[in-house]
Amino acid sequence: LLNEKKIIELKKRITDATYLASVLNMLSWDQEVMMSPKGAELRAQTVAAVSGLLHEKILAINHDALLTNLKHLVDQGKIKNDDAVIVKETWRLYERKKKLPDAFVREMAETISRAFTIWVEARKKSDFKLFQPWLEKIISLKRKEASYVGYSDSPYDALIDEYEPGMTTKNAEAILEDLRNFLVPFIASLKKRKKSLLPKIKGKFLIPDQIKLNNFIAEKLGFDLSAGRIDVSAHPFTTNFNPHDVRFTTSYNDTNLWVALGATIHETGHALYEQGLSAKHFGTPLAEAISLGIHESQSRLYENIIGKSKAFWHYFYPELKKRFPQLKKISATDFYESITRVEPSLIRTESDEVTYNLHIIIRFEIERALIESKLKVKDVPKVWNEKVKHYLGISVPDDAHGVLQDMHWASGGVGYFPTYSFGNLYSAQFYKTMERQIPNLSQKIADSEFKPIQIWLGKNIHIHGKRYSAAEIIKKVTGEPLTSRYFIDYLKEKYGQK
Amino acid sequence: LLNEKKIIELKKRITDATYLASVLNMLSWDQEVMMSPKGAELRAQTVAAVSGLLHEKILAINHDALLTNLKHLVDQGKIKNDDAVIVKETWRLYERKKKLPDAFVREMAETISRAFTIWVEARKKSDFKLFQPWLEKIISLKRKEASYVGYSDSPYDALIDEYEPGMTTKNAEAILEDLRNFLVPFIASLKKRKKSLLPKIKGKFLIPDQIKLNNFIAEKLGFDLSAGRIDVSAHPFTTNFNPHDVRFTTSYNDTNLWVALGATIHETGHALYEQGLSAKHFGTPLAEAISLGIHESQSRLYENIIGKSKAFWHYFYPELKKRFPQLKKISATDFYESITRVEPSLIRTESDEVTYNLHIIIRFEIERALIESKLKVKDVPKVWNEKVKHYLGISVPDDAHGVLQDMHWASGGVGYFPTYSFGNLYSAQFYKTMERQIPNLSQKIADSEFKPIQIWLGKNIHIHGKRYSAAEIIKKVTGEPLTSRYFIDYLKEKYGQK
Repeated sequence: LLNEKKIIELKKRITDATYLASVLNMLSWDQEVMMSPKGAELRAQTVAAVSGLLHEKILAINHDALLTNLKHLVDQGKIKNDDAVIVKETWRLYERKKKLPDAFVREMAETISRAFTIWVEARKKSDFKLFQPWLEKIISLKRKEASYVGYSDSPYDALIDEYEPGMTTKNAEAILEDLRNFLVPFIASLKKRKKSLLPKIKGKFLIPDQIKLNNFIAEKLGFDLSAGRIDVSAHPFTTNFNPHDVRFTTSYNDTNLWVALGATIHETGHALYEQGLSAKHFGTPLAEAISLGIHESQSRLYENIIGKSKAFWHYFYPELKKRFPQLKKISATDFYESITRVEPSLIRTESDEVTYNLHIIIRFEIERALIESKLKVKDVPKVWNEKVKHYLGISVPDDAHGVLQDMHWASGGVGYFPTYSFGNLYSAQFYKTMERQIPNLSQKIADSEFKPIQIWLGKNIHIHGKRYSAAEIIKKVTGEPLTSRYFIDYLKEKYGQK
Repeated sequence: LLNEKKIIELKKRITDATYLASVLNMLSWDQEVMMSPKGAELRAQTVAAVSGLLHEKILAINHDALLTNLKHLVDQGKIKNDDAVIVKETWRLYERKKKLPDAFVREMAETISRAFTIWVEARKKSDFKLFQPWLEKIISLKRKEASYVGYSDSPYDALIDEYEPGMTTKNAEAILEDLRNFLVPFIASLKKRKKSLLPKIKGKFLIPDQIKLNNFIAEKLGFDLSAGRIDVSAHPFTTNFNPHDVRFTTSYNDTNLWVALGATIHETGHALYEQGLSAKHFGTPLAEAISLGIHESQSRLYENIIGKSKAFWHYFYPELKKRFPQLKKISATDFYESITRVEPSLIRTESDEVTYNLHIIIRFEIERALIESKLKVKDVPKVWNEKVKHYLGISVPDDAHGVLQDMHWASGGVGYFPTYSFGNLYSAQFYKTMERQIPNLSQKIADSEFKPIQIWLGKNIHIHGKRYSAAEIIKKVTGEPLTSRYFIDYLKEKYGQK
């Protein structure tokens, strides 16, 4: 009984912290979607204040050694099942925070805040030299962070662990090298597919009509608009305040339908994960997504495997034609070709699902080398450009189209990039199993019957929260650890020479 | 120097509390304007958690007697000017909170939460008996609150003081009795004005066109859309996150233009006050509105004195006709008559600016008698209906159109109602002075030159925050304490028999 009371008290403390985390999500959503420009400065101060409070709340969870105490009981096997998950996951979060001295956290926050502003300017001027001292500072701080957190093999382990708990540098390297070794020759061998036809279509796609279409597709896929919203922001994203209030954004272009469609289908994948989490367990790790990689697997599964399939457009392309008569003369085949073209390009976020992974591998190799002190920051643009040439076969004209294109490093995100590719790999591996377990899956998609997919993902992944780690869930669901094989098979099947 | 450091520490603490208060405003704005229905339950829990944190933060301001200490220094004259205002106002807030035991605050919150649900049902069924036990509980708790807070004359003093600091029951009674003695015979003597012509106009007023019009008018009046937003909600309201992020809502009816226009002009008055507060002093009482009455004076000044004047529509009515050809056959005079008709009616929120105040006086007399134990809750409907008959000359058909129409009592708001009428009185008194100090004021309004009005209100009222009390500011600006005289003169001039 005493242990039960302790667990109840722990749940209360972490739920209180979760309310603050959800408020931070709201402040950030509002800033991107609603806030007028002059609100920025005082909003930043509000966010800093609430973040500080959340930090305090998390540290205070263990002010009387309640958590340490419970952790011992778990280690001794005296607390089991869901309660053990709550204790272990809370301990992981708490321990990582606890290990970082306040002065370090402050220095990191200040550095990132300034570095980000400088990065914006450097990218505008396409001048890496401007950003270089700040990236040096960030890398040195991230190395320091790794040493505070601790690691046995590579300091990069301690960083990747924040985004993909349990993943190691060695494991990531093995998986991504396999992938790279397949992709480089595969892409070289592919004839260029037809270029997108959509931008050539005359006339405009009115935004209000596009909004109706995107909402229609998101709802068809299973997004519950009575438990969330779809809005517009410069960069599409998904956030959740709780499983009953999940919001995502998309971004419209009135001459290119695909800009919004691609984003909407991708974000719907994220949003279905968030709406699939347990409201009953809100506030605890049992109602939290497993990792960035698993989260990304949901969005990639919908965006690429489902959303760029012939079956999907079998149902939706007639809908598009009905809503946009401009498409009358474009055949379903041409439309499909246009959304599945493969072509090496400079900008990661605009790249196709095949070449995308090489963009990630380049970033992974560079950031790992930086953290392991095998590469100097000043040499990064040279190495970047060489790798782009080597892997993708194209030349980088300037830093803005090369090393300065992403905000991740400027925001202190090191170890984050590989989770994007893990997402692709997980998604193909999950889908392979789903195909075995849901009869006539492809036909169901062609009939716009998406409920079985949502139910399958819900019961196999969403509802568990953090009950299993990423490594455990992929094994549990597919019977194997994460491998690049299924993704490679998927690409071969979809894009290989027939 | 030591005192200076103490003040800096106090400012830090109250600013941290203000960030949380601003987060609560955002949660509430989002709930009314953005949130999907299923989000309600977990949102309520989030609000409760953040409110609890704010309560803790306010009590913690004085955990080491910092505030008590500073209050002594102010009393001894060792801290002056702005700093003294900050200390005194923080002390007032803190002391009131401090005096209420935690158990009492919890009981009040729980009672209100249940009472509100019951009130919604009781109003729907038009059955006061359902609500009666809950109103009894609320009145008994409010009497308890008054005894915790303390008072010298009437327990109602302690309640009214929360909304209109410095106002006493005696003073309120004197002012509102004057007003009642004028209004009852004045209204009886008025011939009924022509009924509103607007609802009779055929055709619809498209909401997107109405939105453009309402935004246009709000901006003309001075609302800065780059430091705020205008949205839609069931009940119009204004909120602020800080002076650079002020948001108000209006509510559209596609057959009656005035629904949105009246609300927009009213809320713009509130919003200009919030945008006029000092961003430099954000977080302290120097950047907070004085009182509900002064706040309401700003909205009523724009809504009624300016927004229901011939001069105002001299400029805007042609705009309306341009945008809505349906108005072609309605003359400016008929339009003016329709928005200034006077007619006793049952529902406060739908009443005109003349009879409105009798609705308030009825509520004031009843809630005061309840708190002073001179009236029993079970007798409230009878007394209500008698007063409506006596003051307004009309019969109340049922409780839904009588005693159950307002949510205030059900939400624990006792002592709140009179601030609405104070708003009317302040507004007329301010406007009288403004007329003397701004040359050709009426002509400026007719030319849609509103900047001088905004500047006048800004420098005389907005920018001071809580530097002066309501009693001080009215004296400072107009040379006299609050009186009903100017409002009575205004009504006589505008509505009296000519």
